[in-house]
Amino acid sequence: MSQILKQRVRYAPYLQKLRTPEQCVELFKHGQYLGWSGFTGVGAPKVIPDALAKHVEDNNLQGKFQFNLFVGASAGPEESRWAENDMIIKRAPHQVGRPIAQSINQGKIQFFDKHLSMFPQDLTYGFYTKDKQNDLLDYTIIEATAITEDGSIIPGPSVGASPEFLSVSDKVIIEVNTVTPSFEGLHDIDVPINPPFRQPYPHTSVDYKLGVKAIPIDPSKVVAIVESTKLDIVPPNTPSDEMSRAIAGHLVQFFRNEVKAGRLPDNLLPLQSGIGNVANAIIEGLADANFKHLNVWTEVLQDSFLDLFQNGSLDFATATSIRLTEQGFKRFFDNWDEFSKKLILRSQVVSNSPEIIRRLGVIAMNTPVEVDIYAHANSTNVSGSKMLHGIGGSGDFLRNAKLSIMHTPSSRPTKTDPNGISCVVPFVSHVDQTEHDLDVIVTNNGLADLRGLAPRERSRVIIKNIAHPDYVDQLLDYVNRAEHYAQKTKSLHQPHILKDAFKMHLNLAQNGTMKLDSWDQKFDI
Amino acid sequence: MSQILKQRVRYAPYLQKLRTPEQCVELFKHGQYLGWSGFTGVGAPKVIPDALAKHVEDNNLQGKFQFNLFVGASAGPEESRWAENDMIIKRAPHQVGRPIAQSINQGKIQFFDKHLSMFPQDLTYGFYTKDKQNDLLDYTIIEATAITEDGSIIPGPSVGASPEFLSVSDKVIIEVNTVTPSFEGLHDIDVPINPPFRQPYPHTSVDYKLGVKAIPIDPSKVVAIVESTKLDIVPPNTPSDEMSRAIAGHLVQFFRNEVKAGRLPDNLLPLQSGIGNVANAIIEGLADANFKHLNVWTEVLQDSFLDLFQNGSLDFATATSIRLTEQGFKRFFDNWDEFSKKLILRSQVVSNSPEIIRRLGVIAMNTPVEVDIYAHANSTNVSGSKMLHGIGGSGDFLRNAKLSIMHTPSSRPTKTDPNGISCVVPFVSHVDQTEHDLDVIVTNNGLADLRGLAPRERSRVIIKNIAHPDYVDQLLDYVNRAEHYAQKTKSLHQPHILKDAFKMHLNLAQNGTMKLDSWDQKFDI
Repeated sequence: MSQILKQRVRYAPYLQKLRTPEQCVELFKHGQYLGWSGFTGVGAPKVIPDALAKHVEDNNLQGKFQFNLFVGASAGPEESRWAENDMIIKRAPHQVGRPIAQSINQGKIQFFDKHLSMFPQDLTYGFYTKDKQNDLLDYTIIEATAITEDGSIIPGPSVGASPEFLSVSDKVIIEVNTVTPSFEGLHDIDVPINPPFRQPYPHTSVDYKLGVKAIPIDPSKVVAIVESTKLDIVPPNTPSDEMSRAIAGHLVQFFRNEVKAGRLPDNLLPLQSGIGNVANAIIEGLADANFKHLNVWTEVLQDSFLDLFQNGSLDFATATSIRLTEQGFKRFFDNWDEFSKKLILRSQVVSNSPEIIRRLGVIAMNTPVEVDIYAHANSTNVSGSKMLHGIGGSGDFLRNAKLSIMHTPSSRPTKTDPNGISCVVPFVSHVDQTEHDLDVIVTNNGLADLRGLAPRERSRVIIKNIAHPDYVDQLLDYVNRAEHYAQKTKSLHQPHILKDAFKMHLNLAQNGTMKLDSWDQKFDI
Repeated sequence: MSQILKQRVRYAPYLQKLRTPEQCVELFKHGQYLGWSGFTGVGAPKVIPDALAKHVEDNNLQGKFQFNLFVGASAGPEESRWAENDMIIKRAPHQVGRPIAQSINQGKIQFFDKHLSMFPQDLTYGFYTKDKQNDLLDYTIIEATAITEDGSIIPGPSVGASPEFLSVSDKVIIEVNTVTPSFEGLHDIDVPINPPFRQPYPHTSVDYKLGVKAIPIDPSKVVAIVESTKLDIVPPNTPSDEMSRAIAGHLVQFFRNEVKAGRLPDNLLPLQSGIGNVANAIIEGLADANFKHLNVWTEVLQDSFLDLFQNGSLDFATATSIRLTEQGFKRFFDNWDEFSKKLILRSQVVSNSPEIIRRLGVIAMNTPVEVDIYAHANSTNVSGSKMLHGIGGSGDFLRNAKLSIMHTPSSRPTKTDPNGISCVVPFVSHVDQTEHDLDVIVTNNGLADLRGLAPRERSRVIIKNIAHPDYVDQLLDYVNRAEHYAQKTKSLHQPHILKDAFKMHLNLAQNGTMKLDSWDQKFDI
């Protein structure tokens, strides 16, 4: 037993349950229901999942040693290894990584995606285990960076759905990660209470604290602890580029106008922003535009936020996960005193809470797969059928934010056409966000402010302001013909030609581009 | 000035501003922005809208004397008269009545629908008046049943968005309805406060009261009061029938099972229920099934709730509107002491609050236009293009409820086929509720419990349990072929054949039934 493990585990009885990862394998049975800690690839268990995968690989148990697996959002590369070894029967609510998406789209994994604020509570309601005799998760495997004197768990860089998993688990296994510093002091845990006894979330500002620093747990549920010295691996951030800077430019201008019109305060309102190069460009753009005293209420923080703190633009940030690169984590811990005062990690039911997002008046920004001319958005399924990652928190934020913004490149390349995919289509092939939810859509070509517009007003603003120039005439042609036809059938609210609504998608599948020869084109597929 | 008006208006200065409805006409100008009180056809202004309509009719001002009109939800027949006289430029967020829906679908009215919880706050943010110089509503016309000593307004049978309208109105006109008894004591008003200063809603039970009994208002804004003796007209309730009782039967059985499994308490959780014959059948079914101490947290109450109170099933009910027939209102006021203790009318931002709905764990039940095999629902647009009423509160409740339930007949008749419309289709022609929101769908044919199911599991349960028998094979054929095709393209998450997705709708338009000769059928329209 390492000295550092003894220091980190301040509740002695757990140390008597110490096992190696390999010694944990015997605890598991085919078909069990498991909860894992982790969110956006950080803070998930690693050494036990690896030991189980090795067990499958060594004994050719692919497809015979499988689990129903729940993770707050995505876990790390370990779940990809599980997917490669056909170890997952059912999975919810969000995933990242080629092997797992492939298994879902090959029909090997039964995946369902659910709003990230809702998934943990529905789990505690017993909705996902209702066909199981004891209505509980068999195990939660949780990564800790320390254990308190009463056996409570100090998580690592994410809280996610761990409090809910632990509250409905039959048994618990803890991976104590001793290679990362302890994150003690950074978390603020919501202890789940269900209706009819649930109380208001008291949060009235981004820095509000409930004051619970560790996840409480019944120590008798803990059947094993394991030491882990495996680090989270986060790929380098995608730098901003011309496209993403153009999007950011339109958005910064929009925020300036809103401040000038008195619809936003000088320091805006708490920002929610995703990950990726557009999010990074927006962050950079806001700092360059001299916005000060910004606040962030979001689900995941990345390296760029450290810059915002250090250049004085950002006062406070909160999320359920801090997904830093190795370099980012070093910088974070080197400046712990500074950063830990300005940052809180919360349960995902809190970071994504409709209640708090609406109260604070959050400004939500997310990337869709595609949007349509009436302002519906597809966040999940490419060409309607193929799962990407899941809805994540996009619905939690976009439904409840004061300003609900989606940003996307106006086009994407295919093998044969650099603008073969239009991100503006007549009818999105899957709807995750509805016309009733979105205020603003922005692309590198411009910004469409949809507030207070009726559908036929929206279609013109969207096509003219934000569609890629290659598709403007084609989309206008669709909408003009749709209106002409709807005039006759007296259905001019949201005119569509249903036989043509998906032709751009069909042409993409058949001919590698959404550019149609004609709207009369026929398709075999 | 009538004696009863003097009694009702306890703030004397208002009486000096007394006008006839006709004398109010001069206050209005073409193009103004108006807020009206009212919700689900009750509590809206009547005599001033009628006077304005008469002015248009008498002077042939159709299309020349028009307004941007906002009402919490729907107003009464007066707004139909406005629509008939082409007096509405823009309208939000929800409407009922043939003339107004016709005008929308003929392209005369620019209508946009927004979640009812969100509409009032977005209005106070200035989102719907941003192209207007002073960023305010020009007038709010509100029906009152009394005025307090400080000039505050006691509404009638609905609160709706009146508090928000009044807070952002330049001027106010009050219709004091003296033919109905005063509703004083029945309301609990939320005074709007916007981010970053908004506080938690403290409501932890259906009977919680904030304690504000009238809508506060700056009396200097009031430019006129008018006496009204026009009653709300509510059509008789649709009685339950075989179809609706079948739906209710499946639901009551489902609730019984949930109680037995420990996922619901004996008295269930607060119920949200719409209006119409299915809602009535459910209410009757719950009473017959001997559920006791029920609570209701909903947006509108109808006559059947009075029965539930009186037979002892229902402890407490709250909504933003009580839409009773004339007989119902008589019964209500004859038993005022009993009913007024068990009932609160709230602002619609409170009755439809995502925060409170999620906290209380409401059981939400709503009717869609159609649902699809993967559990998306269309609540608004027939065949994708034609507006019915608007999304109303369905999204507020279905996104946030503990149990999100949609109920619909499995089929509807067309002129040539008694089951010409299947309410289960491959792809809904408009998406208002997503697969991430719905737990249960029920028809007269059965119940589909979708909790924890992946899309391909859902499609089988939906088709087999709830589709009309005439459509089961046709829908299975679609999904089998979609899966076969998706196997090849590795997109087996939510398999669709986009070229066939709307063929049932196309066949309905072309041939008057959704029954296809073959999925290979081609369509000209």
